[in-house]
Amino acid sequence: MSEQFLRLGVPKGSLQDATLKLFAKAGWKIKLHNRNYFPDIDDDRIKCSLARAQEMSMYVENGTFDVGLTGMDWIKENKSDVVIVDDLIYSKVSNRKARWVLCVKGDSPYKRPEDLEGKKVATELMGFTKEYFASQNINVDVSFSWGTTEAKVVEDLCDAIVEITETGTTIRANGLRIIAELMQTNTQLIANKDAWEDPKKRKLITEINMLLQGALKAEKMVGLKMNLPKEKLADLNGSLPSLNSPTVAELQDPNWLSVEIMVEEMVVRDLIPRLVEFGAEGIIEYPLNKVI
Amino acid sequence: MSEQFLRLGVPKGSLQDATLKLFAKAGWKIKLHNRNYFPDIDDDRIKCSLARAQEMSMYVENGTFDVGLTGMDWIKENKSDVVIVDDLIYSKVSNRKARWVLCVKGDSPYKRPEDLEGKKVATELMGFTKEYFASQNINVDVSFSWGTTEAKVVEDLCDAIVEITETGTTIRANGLRIIAELMQTNTQLIANKDAWEDPKKRKLITEINMLLQGALKAEKMVGLKMNLPKEKLADLNGSLPSLNSPTVAELQDPNWLSVEIMVEEMVVRDLIPRLVEFGAEGIIEYPLNKVI
Amino acid sequence: MSEQFLRLGVPKGSLQDATLKLFAKAGWKIKLHNRNYFPDIDDDRIKCSLARAQEMSMYVENGTFDVGLTGMDWIKENKSDVVIVDDLIYSKVSNRKARWVLCVKGDSPYKRPEDLEGKKVATELMGFTKEYFASQNINVDVSFSWGTTEAKVVEDLCDAIVEITETGTTIRANGLRIIAELMQTNTQLIANKDAWEDPKKRKLITEINMLLQGALKAEKMVGLKMNLPKEKLADLNGSLPSLNSPTVAELQDPNWLSVEIMVEEMVVRDLIPRLVEFGAEGIIEYPLNKVI
Amino acid sequence: MSEQFLRLGVPKGSLQDATLKLFAKAGWKIKLHNRNYFPDIDDDRIKCSLARAQEMSMYVENGTFDVGLTGMDWIKENKSDVVIVDDLIYSKVSNRKARWVLCVKGDSPYKRPEDLEGKKVATELMGFTKEYFASQNINVDVSFSWGTTEAKVVEDLCDAIVEITETGTTIRANGLRIIAELMQTNTQLIANKDAWEDPKKRKLITEINMLLQGALKAEKMVGLKMNLPKEKLADLNGSLPSLNSPTVAELQDPNWLSVEIMVEEMVVRDLIPRLVEFGAEGIIEYPLNKVI
Amino acid sequence: MSEQFLRLGVPKGSLQDATLKLFAKAGWKIKLHNRNYFPDIDDDRIKCSLARAQEMSMYVENGTFDVGLTGMDWIKENKSDVVIVDDLIYSKVSNRKARWVLCVKGDSPYKRPEDLEGKKVATELMGFTKEYFASQNINVDVSFSWGTTEAKVVEDLCDAIVEITETGTTIRANGLRIIAELMQTNTQLIANKDAWEDPKKRKLITEINMLLQGALKAEKMVGLKMNLPKEKLADLNGSLPSLNSPTVAELQDPNWLSVEIMVEEMVVRDLIPRLVEFGAEGIIEYPLNKVI
Amino acid sequence: MSEQFLRLGVPKGSLQDATLKLFAKAGWKIKLHNRNYFPDIDDDRIKCSLARAQEMSMYVENGTFDVGLTGMDWIKENKSDVVIVDDLIYSKVSNRKARWVLCVKGDSPYKRPEDLEGKKVATELMGFTKEYFASQNINVDVSFSWGTTEAKVVEDLCDAIVEITETGTTIRANGLRIIAELMQTNTQLIANKDAWEDPKKRKLITEINMLLQGALKAEKMVGLKMNLPKEKLADLNGSLPSLNSPTVAELQDPNWLSVEIMVEEMVVRDLIPRLVEFGAEGIIEYPLNKVI
Repeated sequence: MSEQFLRLGVPKGSLQDATLKLFAKAGWKIKLHNRNYFPDIDDDRIKCSLARAQEMSMYVENGTFDVGLTGMDWIKENKSDVVIVDDLIYSKVSNRKARWVLCVKGDSPYKRPEDLEGKKVATELMGFTKEYFASQNINVDVSFSWGTTEAKVVEDLCDAIVEITETGTTIRANGLRIIAELMQTNTQLIANKDAWEDPKKRKLITEINMLLQGALKAEKMVGLKMNLPKEKLADLNGSLPSLNSPTVAELQDPNWLSVEIMVEEMVVRDLIPRLVEFGAEGIIEYPLNKVI
Repeated sequence: MSEQFLRLGVPKGSLQDATLKLFAKAGWKIKLHNRNYFPDIDDDRIKCSLARAQEMSMYVENGTFDVGLTGMDWIKENKSDVVIVDDLIYSKVSNRKARWVLCVKGDSPYKRPEDLEGKKVATELMGFTKEYFASQNINVDVSFSWGTTEAKVVEDLCDAIVEITETGTTIRANGLRIIAELMQTNTQLIANKDAWEDPKKRKLITEINMLLQGALKAEKMVGLKMNLPKEKLADLNGSLPSLNSPTVAELQDPNWLSVEIMVEEMVVRDLIPRLVEFGAEGIIEYPLNKVI
Repeated sequence: MSEQFLRLGVPKGSLQDATLKLFAKAGWKIKLHNRNYFPDIDDDRIKCSLARAQEMSMYVENGTFDVGLTGMDWIKENKSDVVIVDDLIYSKVSNRKARWVLCVKGDSPYKRPEDLEGKKVATELMGFTKEYFASQNINVDVSFSWGTTEAKVVEDLCDAIVEITETGTTIRANGLRIIAELMQTNTQLIANKDAWEDPKKRKLITEINMLLQGALKAEKMVGLKMNLPKEKLADLNGSLPSLNSPTVAELQDPNWLSVEIMVEEMVVRDLIPRLVEFGAEGIIEYPLNKVI
Repeated sequence: MSEQFLRLGVPKGSLQDATLKLFAKAGWKIKLHNRNYFPDIDDDRIKCSLARAQEMSMYVENGTFDVGLTGMDWIKENKSDVVIVDDLIYSKVSNRKARWVLCVKGDSPYKRPEDLEGKKVATELMGFTKEYFASQNINVDVSFSWGTTEAKVVEDLCDAIVEITETGTTIRANGLRIIAELMQTNTQLIANKDAWEDPKKRKLITEINMLLQGALKAEKMVGLKMNLPKEKLADLNGSLPSLNSPTVAELQDPNWLSVEIMVEEMVVRDLIPRLVEFGAEGIIEYPLNKVI
Repeated sequence: MSEQFLRLGVPKGSLQDATLKLFAKAGWKIKLHNRNYFPDIDDDRIKCSLARAQEMSMYVENGTFDVGLTGMDWIKENKSDVVIVDDLIYSKVSNRKARWVLCVKGDSPYKRPEDLEGKKVATELMGFTKEYFASQNINVDVSFSWGTTEAKVVEDLCDAIVEITETGTTIRANGLRIIAELMQTNTQLIANKDAWEDPKKRKLITEINMLLQGALKAEKMVGLKMNLPKEKLADLNGSLPSLNSPTVAELQDPNWLSVEIMVEEMVVRDLIPRLVEFGAEGIIEYPLNKVI
Repeated sequence: MSEQFLRLGVPKGSLQDATLKLFAKAGWKIKLHNRNYFPDIDDDRIKCSLARAQEMSMYVENGTFDVGLTGMDWIKENKSDVVIVDDLIYSKVSNRKARWVLCVKGDSPYKRPEDLEGKKVATELMGFTKEYFASQNINVDVSFSWGTTEAKVVEDLCDAIVEITETGTTIRANGLRIIAELMQTNTQLIANKDAWEDPKKRKLITEINMLLQGALKAEKMVGLKMNLPKEKLADLNGSLPSLNSPTVAELQDPNWLSVEIMVEEMVVRDLIPRLVEFGAEGIIEYPLNKVI
């Protein structure tokens, strides 16, 4: 590595807790300090800094950080020239990506973006919003909002807003109506271009990504292990397409095989009854920490 | 399935939390809504409703629900003509079944049910109680109690009560004495008779039961895995009767076998020392999610 | 066993919660009673009593208890003639042993123990402290402290203290300076000498120790399982020295092996990338309850 | 008193906590026992029992209790012949009385009670509901509901329900519509007729009521004290009608008076500005425990 | 009032809870709604909206709100032309005003603002910061910071920051050094100019301020009441200067007076011993809700 | 004061929280620091140290502290020559003093202290216990106990114990029986003899005691204020003996008097009805902070 350590940007705010938990599962303990933006990490090769998700991609682009986590929305807003290493789909209740949507008052006449010609739009994501409307050849007056953005439409401070939402609940609770979805967004692992060209740094970034992905994958998966009559194996592979690459071992009893598979937890309830019909015995399900 | 979905009755009240946890372990997420009695379930084939355990079997009998969970006591009280699919022995501290018992004041002269001839008995389970005394040819005056039933004996509002108890603590704390046990009760998975005759519905109910039972069983069990000298295997099977059906695999080293067993957690502390004496090495214990 | 049961002393106070959790992992449920010093244990062969860690070794020595847990410091302080069965390294944040240290005021002239000739020393561990200074031929006046020992140096009630510390934080927070480490201490499983000579009791004590150690070991370890091309196995054993004694099984596919190892959780993040480079596939990490 | 003590019925359930707090403010500590229905009270003249609000008036009527607290709804349902000593308006968020209302599905055709002719109605308050419909000459089939009553309309198990509500939130959340209010209800202090004729018991009941009312009143009131120029007093009494019966004292300075009043906390924000305009000085507001 | 109601802006964020508590003490209950920015207030003359403290003064200036609460810092930043009704010194632990300070790295060479000539300064308060440096004839490059501003100096993204602090703890924890204090700030009650000219609105704003101030004052004060020998009164007034304007009333006993004073709670421990020496008897201290 | 400050010893352990709350009510804020034995106090004349209650009187005797709080038991155990300034009866649930009692096994033959001749007694309070038995001419073997003292009798490690108890619950829960009460004990405010002779220090100690006692007294008392017809006053004083020294003021209406009294909260429920019978009107009860 051209320097002594890899500088990692940890997003402060709504992504922070999920990020710390994910690194813990992957094998790194990151410890926050009260009123200090430089968390400790138990790996001498890495130094951590907290930064706002809104600013992260700028810091990765300009080399302040070698690698960082942030949303695709702020990468686009900042037009940052960074390496997108991988998508990090954190396990959430909704499992839906967050969306930036264009909303108007519920009882307003606006039905489509073009109805907003000449109107006022408030948003936290100004650059992206301006470009969106420009690309559609719609003239709007875009102004910045510090927050409580929904309230601005309700109080007639603007005609529309561009706001982020996962489930739409807050938007509906304020009596607003979504008329367009402008972007979907998700957490990304991003790297600085020079760091990515440095073989030592790229190797470490790649390993971190491998372990983060392994921990994310294990959250949704479980191990299944069973004994199967040997003559059923071929049929099993043919008829249960989800069973790609089972680990099959001989048992002492020459008529039986041990079959072990890793599957998504949510398919287990459908799979087990089919395995039983198939003749499997001694089926057990066990939890996983990582799946690589 | 003759209809699009299976209607599942979830017991509201004391069984509710245990039921939701059990379904989660079995593979279904049921999500309650505040002030609304129709929980979501993450399976398009099923629709959930909350209902009181007392009323559940009636709704399963009349087809409002295809399948439901409730206690054997209320099935009998309602004389509901339903299919008893299986017993669900929830893991509790006491691990004892709940019992409906006949209690009198601690210092009263009554020793046996027949001593209550001509007396007053209060209970929440009126039908069952009347039948019990009729079957014994004892004349008693049975009246309905809304609750705080123990207090009624203490205050001489009645001579005896029929009440449910797990450990007897509340009964003793009020100075009462149990003179007879009338019924043991336990949670049951029950099905509507027509639903049970519908092949698609029966299949789904059977699969739900298989997974509920698998999750219940895993709560008390762990996996043990060890390496064993090949020549000891026969002895092991002979001398350790609890080891029914171990999964035995060849290792690369031709002198050793890999042996894997599922055992009740509470026997592990006795079993491991015997396995070590026997020559087992590399013993590990790991947790289980389901045992089918 | 010469008596009906093994009498186990459970340390009351700072070790109590960690002790109960450790026994639970090992397979015994110990249940405290409010305002009563005789906890229940779910094993008919054992009776539990609570005792202070300071007095534990005296009770084990005189046979009140057959076996107990306490620190090495109080065994030495009491000069108890007991059998040290094993070290119990509870998993703590610091993972360091506690130390009894000799401390003086930060701005005092004392640099070494011999500088305290003729001075006053306060401690809770009087016997050990007196002997220590006697063995060094240093005359000091040792007095007993009931607690808040650090404050006594700050207020000039004494010139030095002998106090226990894990990380030194409290000592530094009071402006004190450590000039010597007198003893390291750790929790020990100790047994009465006669009990140890009784074959039945020794067998049970040995089994308890085996399971306690198995639970302690599993806290820091995880299981790793992978598929490996058969021709890589020899290389793997040679180049990955941490992989002592993997369990290797044949798979049905004659070119692949199943390799399973137990490793410390903290090396996994370095190990997995090397295994992947090596050609391993389907790597999973899973949690462990016990490693014997 | 004809007997040694006054028997007081304390409502178990939703009214229980509010009742215990009210008695504490009035001057009596009532202490519940776990799993026992006879709370302690720190007054040798009184004995407490817990009873369900639904059954309370029956027990007061038949003399089991001399005095008790329950809702007007269950007094009417039970048609109990008891003395209504006083209304107890507990301070609640809403400050509204609870109401029993007739509800139908939001999208049903029923607009008025008479539209339910020949239909099914479910309720926990059967007697009252039957009488209500009889008095209106409407034939309906009233059936008893154990709870989750709103769900029964939603699932078409009945056409309407009679249910209690304070704010209507649960009713609306289930998509129901209120078509009539049948009764308002409130907590009452009630007494047995014989107890009320016993002079000693009536005296104690009256004193308890005086102190309960004094504590309830003080929750909404504060004390205001001010100095006022003597010549303004007559004007003050004339122009501030809310100031009935101020306590007026001479001050040493013969030109000023001390005026002290007890007022509802919610009028203070309007009153203080008027007092200042009027020439009052040194106005203070202080909290009250009781106002008799 | 020219309109039906007074529009009140409530600051969302760090001031929000303190604001709601203060209004509650003053006599108004403001109730937040989940996911909705229009809290309820129990006064028909007022309508509340939540707004960010940063934007509040703009909304008061343009008439969106008639009156609002925000910090002096953001009033200045926005150069808002509003009426400053009064200072609201919320009771805090520190009781110090917050300060915007100019900070540099602890080990940097900068000692005074002029040392930053030609350097980069980051802040959330851009307008004010630019003007400050312009007024000092210092050329600096001021850039906007979204937050975690201290980190930017540490990471050399800028040379200095202008940041808010109460105690300086966060600044020191990041190793920064304060080289100048640029502004002190405190919560203000502000009004729109037109609203202030409307007699009805000004009257209501003035009353709200009177009650907010009365509640703030009462937090630090208590009432003291005592009986005093008549001949001591003159001496008391002379020798106890803190006792300005006691309320003195005659008692029935012509030799004694009743003396009542409101004093700061923190002087009571010094005052009571002096009052006792002076001959005062029956001294009581009681709590206050408001002091006008 | 001969020195700059008064050194105050604050008891660490079971008395600590109650002590801090009491000083707060009296007017001093004492703030603990984590891992440091020298709390801050908001009075420049005082310096605080934490010390164990067992050692407090020794430090007050030798002048380390000028004043401190500890139990009478440890003053006697240490035979400390200190000034007992006053008793501090902390308000507890039981309101009973703690007692050191002599206990034996419930089924033992010992009935009186003299039955223990030649027996073994364990206690934490060795000096006092030895003297007690010596003064009774009873020979016993007294040994020191670090804690869990009750268990030692149960396990036959001794024949009797001398232990502290408030309600006897722990003693009964272990099946022990009290055969003698040896000492009652209570928290004391104690002073060093020289400090007490220093006029400045004695003055400050006396003031602290006055305010501590004033705060303790106010916890159990409330203020009652009422208007009374003038002709009833003489009768009132005669017939209501609890009303010693009411404060009586003339009202403007020459027929009425204002009467104000401080009474124990627990008599209010009896007093108010009698005052109403007597003709009192406008009775209010209000809370108190201090009563001197």
